[in-house]
Amino acid sequence: MRPVFFLSDFGLEDPYVGVVRGVIARLAPGAPVHDLGHDLPPQDLKKAAWSLFAAVPWLPEGAVVLAVVDPGVGTDRRALAVRGQRLFYVLPDNGLLTLAAERDPLEAAVALPLPEAASATFHGRDVFAPAAARLAAGAGLKELGTPREVAALRRLPLELGEEAGVVLTFDRFGNAITTVKNPARPPRAVRVGRHTLPFVRTFADVPPGKPLAYAGSSGLVEVAVNQGSARALLGLKGGEAVRLVF
Amino acid sequence: MRPVFFLSDFGLEDPYVGVVRGVIARLAPGAPVHDLGHDLPPQDLKKAAWSLFAAVPWLPEGAVVLAVVDPGVGTDRRALAVRGQRLFYVLPDNGLLTLAAERDPLEAAVALPLPEAASATFHGRDVFAPAAARLAAGAGLKELGTPREVAALRRLPLELGEEAGVVLTFDRFGNAITTVKNPARPPRAVRVGRHTLPFVRTFADVPPGKPLAYAGSSGLVEVAVNQGSARALLGLKGGEAVRLVF
Amino acid sequence: MRPVFFLSDFGLEDPYVGVVRGVIARLAPGAPVHDLGHDLPPQDLKKAAWSLFAAVPWLPEGAVVLAVVDPGVGTDRRALAVRGQRLFYVLPDNGLLTLAAERDPLEAAVALPLPEAASATFHGRDVFAPAAARLAAGAGLKELGTPREVAALRRLPLELGEEAGVVLTFDRFGNAITTVKNPARPPRAVRVGRHTLPFVRTFADVPPGKPLAYAGSSGLVEVAVNQGSARALLGLKGGEAVRLVF
Repeated sequence: MRPVFFLSDFGLEDPYVGVVRGVIARLAPGAPVHDLGHDLPPQDLKKAAWSLFAAVPWLPEGAVVLAVVDPGVGTDRRALAVRGQRLFYVLPDNGLLTLAAERDPLEAAVALPLPEAASATFHGRDVFAPAAARLAAGAGLKELGTPREVAALRRLPLELGEEAGVVLTFDRFGNAITTVKNPARPPRAVRVGRHTLPFVRTFADVPPGKPLAYAGSSGLVEVAVNQGSARALLGLKGGEAVRLVF
Repeated sequence: MRPVFFLSDFGLEDPYVGVVRGVIARLAPGAPVHDLGHDLPPQDLKKAAWSLFAAVPWLPEGAVVLAVVDPGVGTDRRALAVRGQRLFYVLPDNGLLTLAAERDPLEAAVALPLPEAASATFHGRDVFAPAAARLAAGAGLKELGTPREVAALRRLPLELGEEAGVVLTFDRFGNAITTVKNPARPPRAVRVGRHTLPFVRTFADVPPGKPLAYAGSSGLVEVAVNQGSARALLGLKGGEAVRLVF
Repeated sequence: MRPVFFLSDFGLEDPYVGVVRGVIARLAPGAPVHDLGHDLPPQDLKKAAWSLFAAVPWLPEGAVVLAVVDPGVGTDRRALAVRGQRLFYVLPDNGLLTLAAERDPLEAAVALPLPEAASATFHGRDVFAPAAARLAAGAGLKELGTPREVAALRRLPLELGEEAGVVLTFDRFGNAITTVKNPARPPRAVRVGRHTLPFVRTFADVPPGKPLAYAGSSGLVEVAVNQGSARALLGLKGGEAVRLVF
């Protein structure tokens, strides 16, 4: 059995995550299903794209990534299964792989058929979970749908930069994740919005309550406040300009 | 091993969910345990009853549903194990199966004994988890306790209607789930509180920020706002009157 | 395979929990990983220490507890693997075992090496998960690092008392957990801050909205409000004095 790693914005206050797990357990009994996170802000495609980028290098070869953040559910946006060099993906065609594809180049894609009985608002249950279960149980990509050109998949307007970029998203701790890749040699400082922050190694390199920038664990420069929230204390917003200062 | 699907209002900020998983892992090593949701609003029996209704058709035959939303813990309310046509249930006798029983008719029930050493406030750990583990490991219902009449189990004052009902609960996205069953032919509109909403197929059938009603994925009519929260934007409350308009 | 029980303050809105699960799935395929709770308040060592204290007696013999609440990540605080009489632990050396060690006496400890490529801010992924995976796959403690004296491990300034103590932490329901052990014979009342509360058996022994004290399920006296939040309604704070009144 291939393990399934399941990302969504369903939260855990509703039965949606459990229902998807039920469908997988019925169709692929014994397949391990791991949560990749379900409390994503509803319909936040950028954060979902970053989450996949951060996770991809660490998942076992051949794993199935099921990612359901799907504001276009029920429209004519396609449902996809995709094979990368290392992993499989089952998800809507809305750009969720924009960043992850830089780390796991996409090799093939199929459009999933929409079953007659599918609901118009819960393709996680009716379209994506059955496809993920079939991959978990050993099916090949081509058994699942109609071939699509990888180059034709939708992308989000996100570019990773070497020295400049923007605030991409925030994590639970209020750390800001930027679109700037971790630099090969440490800059002197990082400018974000109207702030200039020292570039250091870790949180405790500045006093509690003080801001810092550092090479983030997902491969992108981050901005934080030691034992505090950069989002709250620096008043940062998504999209603010970021620049390394050498 | 029968898989266990575990619903509670314990949240994930406390060790309660993990402790229940520990008890099951000790008594039924290797039994798969899946979360059905733990961030239910504390002691919200209606939302829990809807969650089970929504999940039941999608869980694998023979699975064990462990549902611990239990404001009466430590009182003389009974602890139950129940066998439906398709699934097993382990839960307090407080009406949690009121809606699910419409989809998985209940066939037999037993009252679980209260162990001498049980705490008065955490029967999830001391009463329900051991029973769920025994079912997961293959025990029959009758080995677990004293027979009870299915007809004598408590019910919540909830009725599903064909054309009229009330707002039953809300999901994470602020969508309102009603007690009105999905209609066989689409109505023209849905009246909820002082609002009249178009009945459409999916969110994107109205512009962003606009309200809609639709056949919900759990089998009940829902009210939403495209890319927004119906609960917040329409000011809806639980119990508000709902009526289909043909 | 030894099962892994995973506690963190990572939340489920970010991919961190899933990434740790990915690392374990790669290094110890098939090892069951159970969540012990991830929505701990960020960097709340006291609540984490209580969570482990509450969980330890209920986990299966030989299980691996992976606990990542780590405000000192990237500093010279040690990373540890520890063997207790019943369980293994993988965690930073910051006092997380202060309370749990009273229930599972610690027998041996090793300091984990810091891999060359480890990030400075996510040792959960780069240091702790690999060690937990190796224990899950059957490794002995000594294979993992350099021996450390158990007596030299750091402790939090927490003492459990027989008749007096303080408010230690709160749970999701707003119940206050104290540092006073459940008494052998019930006291007449419990004084907490400026309140004096009846000591009863369970929530429903007082009317809805009324406060109570009782023998908590984790082994420590708790203060609650029936169907309400003691934290909100009594205005309690961590550290407030608690005393049993006989």
